[in-house]
Amino acid sequence: MARIVMKFGGTSVADTDRIKNVAQRVKREVDAGQQVAVVVSAMAGTTNQLVDWTRGIARMHDAREYDVVVAAGEQVTAGLLALALQDIGVNARSWLGWQIPFATDGIHGKARIEHIDTTIMEERFEQGQVAVVAGFQGIGPDNRITTLGRGGSDTSAVALAAALRAERCDIYTDVDGVYTTDPRITSRARKIDRITYEEMLELASQGAKVLQTRSVAMAMQHGVRVQVLSSFVDAPGTLVVDEDEIVEQQVVTGIAYSPDEAKVTLVGVPDRPGVAGAIFGSLADAAVNVDMIVQNVSQDGDATDLTFTVAQADLDRANHVLEGLSDELGYKQIVADAGVCKISVVGVGMRSQPGVAKTMFQTLAEKGINIQVISTSEIKVSVLISADYTELAVRALHTAYGLDAEVVG
Amino acid sequence: MARIVMKFGGTSVADTDRIKNVAQRVKREVDAGQQVAVVVSAMAGTTNQLVDWTRGIARMHDAREYDVVVAAGEQVTAGLLALALQDIGVNARSWLGWQIPFATDGIHGKARIEHIDTTIMEERFEQGQVAVVAGFQGIGPDNRITTLGRGGSDTSAVALAAALRAERCDIYTDVDGVYTTDPRITSRARKIDRITYEEMLELASQGAKVLQTRSVAMAMQHGVRVQVLSSFVDAPGTLVVDEDEIVEQQVVTGIAYSPDEAKVTLVGVPDRPGVAGAIFGSLADAAVNVDMIVQNVSQDGDATDLTFTVAQADLDRANHVLEGLSDELGYKQIVADAGVCKISVVGVGMRSQPGVAKTMFQTLAEKGINIQVISTSEIKVSVLISADYTELAVRALHTAYGLDAEVVG
Repeated sequence: MARIVMKFGGTSVADTDRIKNVAQRVKREVDAGQQVAVVVSAMAGTTNQLVDWTRGIARMHDAREYDVVVAAGEQVTAGLLALALQDIGVNARSWLGWQIPFATDGIHGKARIEHIDTTIMEERFEQGQVAVVAGFQGIGPDNRITTLGRGGSDTSAVALAAALRAERCDIYTDVDGVYTTDPRITSRARKIDRITYEEMLELASQGAKVLQTRSVAMAMQHGVRVQVLSSFVDAPGTLVVDEDEIVEQQVVTGIAYSPDEAKVTLVGVPDRPGVAGAIFGSLADAAVNVDMIVQNVSQDGDATDLTFTVAQADLDRANHVLEGLSDELGYKQIVADAGVCKISVVGVGMRSQPGVAKTMFQTLAEKGINIQVISTSEIKVSVLISADYTELAVRALHTAYGLDAEVVG
Repeated sequence: MARIVMKFGGTSVADTDRIKNVAQRVKREVDAGQQVAVVVSAMAGTTNQLVDWTRGIARMHDAREYDVVVAAGEQVTAGLLALALQDIGVNARSWLGWQIPFATDGIHGKARIEHIDTTIMEERFEQGQVAVVAGFQGIGPDNRITTLGRGGSDTSAVALAAALRAERCDIYTDVDGVYTTDPRITSRARKIDRITYEEMLELASQGAKVLQTRSVAMAMQHGVRVQVLSSFVDAPGTLVVDEDEIVEQQVVTGIAYSPDEAKVTLVGVPDRPGVAGAIFGSLADAAVNVDMIVQNVSQDGDATDLTFTVAQADLDRANHVLEGLSDELGYKQIVADAGVCKISVVGVGMRSQPGVAKTMFQTLAEKGINIQVISTSEIKVSVLISADYTELAVRALHTAYGLDAEVVG
């Protein structure tokens, strides 16, 4: 008998009617002969309310108590969904993190899952019982509730699917799959039927916020087949699978954009060993994550310009760090620009297919879009451009790589 | 070092500001050198919301899942209060029912506490740590969350005080103590300084809804000294203690009234053995609780009238049961009257002091109030009267028994 994990996010369980709708979806899988574990998030808005209360109470958080408060949201949904399933004749019971147990490392607020004991759950599967599991939560070695960090229910679901050796982990959300690019930017964006873990990772971390990056990495590590689909629409979604499950490979699978970037240029940096180490070491110490980096070749032999990108939210902190290094480094000037956007084309096919970057550069050049920074990985080419050209660039690249949906009529 | 349990109800923890206020009260006890365990209810309104959701989801309840949902309310408050205490420099941690554990019999929805393991909590007391305990919840032999029934947090607090051999269990609520009668009926009602368990039990079950009856019975059984006081006013409340702690005993301690009664008279009931058994047996089977009963002496030797009271909420059910017995019993008529009120005078002093009932009957007669049914216990006299005279009767009795506060000026 096949076994699946279904995961429903906050908007899918936002009220009692939606929870009943979820119960019907679960029943359909049960009626089709599946053994089912369902992982649920808190009802939409609940986690924010609980987090706000903890902030209103105390300036500093004890992460252990924070976990006690916020884990209550998933507990409520799990109980309600079990009731809704029973009401339509499905044998079901709820499981909280500490009951399973979902053993974690005990780093409160962002715990990592270490072991899931599925013995009893699997016995109950044999009796036809559906397991309704509170997502996002586990238990630490201190016998206290831990949470996995925001969006952690995706991770709960994938980890449970791995532990149960499930055939598939279906992540139900408010979109019906992963798209070749943001459908709000071009109506020609197409839903992707199958995508590799690597591509999904690049898209997730590049701004396509469908699946939590950490859950994709875990799915890849354990070979869990993940499907992203809508709980409101009745249609297959996007399967995230191993590369060898994808027969016909596109060169480029999708185009992501990330508008939350800022560019920093240090002008007139002394061109001597140890400078880059001092700069990026200090930024890392201040928890500023640096993404793209480019260093111009020194013209006169003793000074150069260094450009890199950080998240916009980190820009003030980065400036502060750099100003503190002013005396030590003796650079001339800091130039910061928050009006930039990173565009990435992603596809495992580019490993074997040359010319992907060339197409990107040509396409942008034809539209008169200046490329400020470039970075590449094995399956990705990213460029930094002025934010004003974001939509134009995404649409042009979508067409150039043959991703446009055929227009009917 | 002295040890106390403090319990805060829903209105005392209704929002983050009130939780901070509670933290200050706890801090004061800690600063005074007390070892403190705090039991908290859900934030006011939360439990009703959670219960409504379970009702909206399913027609029939699985009490195990109901418990999972509703127990979340106390969990949130416990975490928030621990954070609030830490924020003002008090060492504190939250404890959930399953963590302590608060072992119950596993009757979900209305579990009874069997054992509380306070070993670790007492170790933490030695380190100066305050225990913040989620009320209303425990764990069953099935390793699942149980709840103690509505108002169960009072019972949690008293049980914990017994297990910890605490000097006192302070129940903070939205009134500042137990009064000689309802202050909304007479402004001359006085706060009672000390009251015995037995009196409190009679007052609680007779309509003075300050403390849950079950928690008072448990306090009496284990000799836990309970104090009822306000979390909003800074003044001593009412101490509920053993009789020998009360030096100067009043004959009558308080006057309770219960407007939620209905009177049922069966007219022309055959006067033969087994009739009362058939009637009250059938009512008990239908879970209708019968309170006062009076049977007139049969005048002509073959038929009599039988009068009793039930809760107004049970009146329809009682009528239905009695109509079903019509053929079997052959009574003439059912007369029901929901316009009645039960007035009770309560006091352990009446054991040794005769004339209490006489004063009651005389006082009511002087006001022209007809007594419909009378029942007595060792420390209580109750009468059923027309509901129209409720306020008049309570005020007159309050004066007659010398309970009126002295009017200043």
